[in-house]
Amino acid sequence: MIYLDNAATTFKKPEIVYEKIIESMREYGANPGRGGHKLSLKAGRGIYETREILAKLFNINNPMNIIFTYNATEALNLGIKGLLEKGDHVITTAMEHNSVLRPIKALENLGVENTIVKCDSEGFVELNDIKRSIKKNTKLIVTTHASNITGTIFPIKEIGELAKANNIIYMVDAAQTAGVYDIDVESMNIDILAFAGHKSLLGPQGTGGLYIKEGINIRNLKEGGTGSKSHELVQPSMLPDRYESGTPNTPGIIALGAGVKYILDKGIENIRNHEIELLNFFINEIKDVEGVILYGPTDVSKRVPVILMNIGNEDSSEVSYILDSVFDIATRSGLHCAPLAHKTIGTLERGAVRFSIGPFNTKEDIAKTLKAIKQIAHEATCD
Amino acid sequence: MIYLDNAATTFKKPEIVYEKIIESMREYGANPGRGGHKLSLKAGRGIYETREILAKLFNINNPMNIIFTYNATEALNLGIKGLLEKGDHVITTAMEHNSVLRPIKALENLGVENTIVKCDSEGFVELNDIKRSIKKNTKLIVTTHASNITGTIFPIKEIGELAKANNIIYMVDAAQTAGVYDIDVESMNIDILAFAGHKSLLGPQGTGGLYIKEGINIRNLKEGGTGSKSHELVQPSMLPDRYESGTPNTPGIIALGAGVKYILDKGIENIRNHEIELLNFFINEIKDVEGVILYGPTDVSKRVPVILMNIGNEDSSEVSYILDSVFDIATRSGLHCAPLAHKTIGTLERGAVRFSIGPFNTKEDIAKTLKAIKQIAHEATCD
Repeated sequence: MIYLDNAATTFKKPEIVYEKIIESMREYGANPGRGGHKLSLKAGRGIYETREILAKLFNINNPMNIIFTYNATEALNLGIKGLLEKGDHVITTAMEHNSVLRPIKALENLGVENTIVKCDSEGFVELNDIKRSIKKNTKLIVTTHASNITGTIFPIKEIGELAKANNIIYMVDAAQTAGVYDIDVESMNIDILAFAGHKSLLGPQGTGGLYIKEGINIRNLKEGGTGSKSHELVQPSMLPDRYESGTPNTPGIIALGAGVKYILDKGIENIRNHEIELLNFFINEIKDVEGVILYGPTDVSKRVPVILMNIGNEDSSEVSYILDSVFDIATRSGLHCAPLAHKTIGTLERGAVRFSIGPFNTKEDIAKTLKAIKQIAHEATCD
Repeated sequence: MIYLDNAATTFKKPEIVYEKIIESMREYGANPGRGGHKLSLKAGRGIYETREILAKLFNINNPMNIIFTYNATEALNLGIKGLLEKGDHVITTAMEHNSVLRPIKALENLGVENTIVKCDSEGFVELNDIKRSIKKNTKLIVTTHASNITGTIFPIKEIGELAKANNIIYMVDAAQTAGVYDIDVESMNIDILAFAGHKSLLGPQGTGGLYIKEGINIRNLKEGGTGSKSHELVQPSMLPDRYESGTPNTPGIIALGAGVKYILDKGIENIRNHEIELLNFFINEIKDVEGVILYGPTDVSKRVPVILMNIGNEDSSEVSYILDSVFDIATRSGLHCAPLAHKTIGTLERGAVRFSIGPFNTKEDIAKTLKAIKQIAHEATCD
């Protein structure tokens, strides 16, 4: 099996991730921070270590400003809905995932205005278009770091500067980049950062998180047991407890820490260079193949290793099905939870096939995939 | 190590739970339902199987009416906040966990009224007190199935009947009972059922869920990618997608299914009888020991295997610390995220030590624990 669905979930994980999840469950599978016994303390320390290593990765000053969530979607909902109130205005872009667009559209009912900035056919946003969308009541700009369908990389540093200059909070959806592309919340002026644990951070599913800059007041969307200030009927205000009610996914978070440690040990630029090398190989080999329609930036340096395509007039689900059943290659077809992005690039009707590269893919994987695509394209164009 | 903190998280788990979590991660760690390839389909099937077996356990007609959440706290927040609106009235009790009380108190700010019914010093609620609290605008009654501090079992069938007779929705917090005590949503008139996956259902942390009876309209609190109706900017209305945005904790949910299967294979009444036997042994041996103050029902048949106590004038944290460091026994001290319950039984100031029994505890565990308590009590009363 050649797995090219890494933009959904990376597979496989580093060996240490499997080892840590099972070790934490077998050896100290207790409830962290809710009892003073040894196993509980060890579980609590494990979670804190993951906060610490993520803080190192993203250059976050205080690890306690990182909140763990179920997934990136929950983190994005918390950041968007916890911040915006009736009368506020939010700016976002057409390349966003439904985990950004749907909460923003839902907030319309509560009187939160929005502007969805259009992007060009390669998925790029114009900084000036964002600038022109700023209104007196603009409280938040939220953009992806890179599109999950075209791979287009957004100029987050520049958007961060623009936001800062206008006293607007900037929130980045790093679901497709965290762990492979550099993210520095300080130098990039990122106020809120949402990430998935199970994608390029190499942790298990059931993990994600949100960094909230000191001083930004986001309403908690849930209340419950925090193991702190238990005598009070109101949620404690300190971080991370304010946002982390109930028992967390301790083994998942500990294994996520192992994934991030693997990345730092290996070197984030080494992982990135490997993926870019495979991306270049893929694009260069496929771009002129008859019948293949490629989407996204032609300048490969401006995209993450996500390749979206269609073949002739074939249905994208059919192509994915053939890749899976005949060639044992796992891809994703159809729409990819980003309807306006599909509209932008002209694939809303038919969808497209997505190939997404992970750190454990090899040149051989790509070579075999190219061969399969060429064969499908040949048959499609001969029809 | 003798682990008696099972009410927080059961430890250990059945061997099959460890095996399934690692098997699902290593062999088909893909994103369920978001791609049509083999691994994705297998992951999706695994999740569905857990829905099915939970439906069997709770006598739920349609498995799709079970929603997976991060933990029971999230499930309770969804049930409470997704249902209640300005002008509604909710009835709950003083024995509830902060995961019920804090959301209800937070809703006061939005104009949702509440009545918190008092309980007696053993933690029992009077059905008539609930009945007397019903008002014209009462929309919801929410109670625990059993207290997490005194173990007191609530008459949920009777409360369910009362709710039904008055056209009020009944929601049960089964965090302390699911998997050990019988729960039948049909015969018990339970409209909404919240459960934790990592307690007596024997699954991993990072799992929980909510059953929502057909026809009850709970607002979703999050929006995002659902892998369904991806072209739409509004959340789909069908279950479970409406409430399950973003990538779920697939390995956790699959392992939870293995935990529930273990319970059904072993027989829920056999697990319960084993735990009750240990509970009886514990209570009978300790109840007359000088210096030991026991809380909760004196009628042992009316409590789950949670034993709360104080020893002499000792601080509860100190007792827990001695149990852990000298005797290698894991318990929990202080308040247990249920402040009104502590107030009810008179331990709000000093807290108490909680011993909670799980399916893998043995008579020898309890014998050793009793010996340790007696020794601590002896030293405390000799001071």
